[in-house]
Amino acid sequence: MSVIKYYWEDFIPGEVATFGAYHVTKEEIIEFASVYDPQLMHTDEEAAKKTFMGGLCASGWHTCAMSMRMMCDHYLLESAAMGSPGLDDNKWRAPVRPGDILSMKRECLDRRVSQSRPEMGLTRLRHTVTNQHGEVKMILEGSLLFARRHPGAEV
Amino acid sequence: MSVIKYYWEDFIPGEVATFGAYHVTKEEIIEFASVYDPQLMHTDEEAAKKTFMGGLCASGWHTCAMSMRMMCDHYLLESAAMGSPGLDDNKWRAPVRPGDILSMKRECLDRRVSQSRPEMGLTRLRHTVTNQHGEVKMILEGSLLFARRHPGAEV
Repeated sequence: MSVIKYYWEDFIPGEVATFGAYHVTKEEIIEFASVYDPQLMHTDEEAAKKTFMGGLCASGWHTCAMSMRMMCDHYLLESAAMGSPGLDDNKWRAPVRPGDILSMKRECLDRRVSQSRPEMGLTRLRHTVTNQHGEVKMILEGSLLFARRHPGAEV
Repeated sequence: MSVIKYYWEDFIPGEVATFGAYHVTKEEIIEFASVYDPQLMHTDEEAAKKTFMGGLCASGWHTCAMSMRMMCDHYLLESAAMGSPGLDDNKWRAPVRPGDILSMKRECLDRRVSQSRPEMGLTRLRHTVTNQHGEVKMILEGSLLFARRHPGAEV
């Protein structure tokens, strides 16, 4: 693990950060979907044109995975992250296509110290994924756990 | 696309289906995470022992992807599925480990015809993922869109 830059204290409600980019390719869309989501709209460029999606697009789970990679590269790998209990909301707003360049906006919505484990805290974050034209592709809302820099301090 | 067996009418509130299995391997955990979620608990067996997870475990997004593959194989590829607006809830309840054999329970919670597009309907489903010991690993709740078998029929 690299040096830890971000603890629970470093995520401040109201704060916004933007990061990315992730270049989406046809090859990666098909490779991911062939293993995990082999619906034709994700695996077959020609057949996808005849589906309700009108052409090849990424599995929604692939969009989640690509977003996670951007989150890792921008802050999670340098943080005291201790996992996530899950998401409260996850909306796929528009298909992700080959050629899309995805980027993210992170908004810190709320935070609190864990009652059962006061050495860590919960941070509720909204991540909005857009492409290079500003089209919103996905919105994730959920909580992440981080270790506290000063576990005993008053909040 | 294979022959369509399941339309919106075939998902009945209260109905339960079980399916799987997915055999989770160390190699696949590391391969997925190396691309999409390179935190040490997912990519390095030795280093993972010293993390809060106490050993190698799958990325939560990998668990979502493996679950989607089970859903595809059991019913989605034979259905008139038309995508999903997203999830209302997604909880990672316990780490998924190498050697876990995952299976799923699908519960149909609710359904309604789309108001804007009456040729399709929304079905709200809860998918619960457990391992071979009955340990709950993940719960997904969200809506899927399906074409209707009888678009004009009274509901």
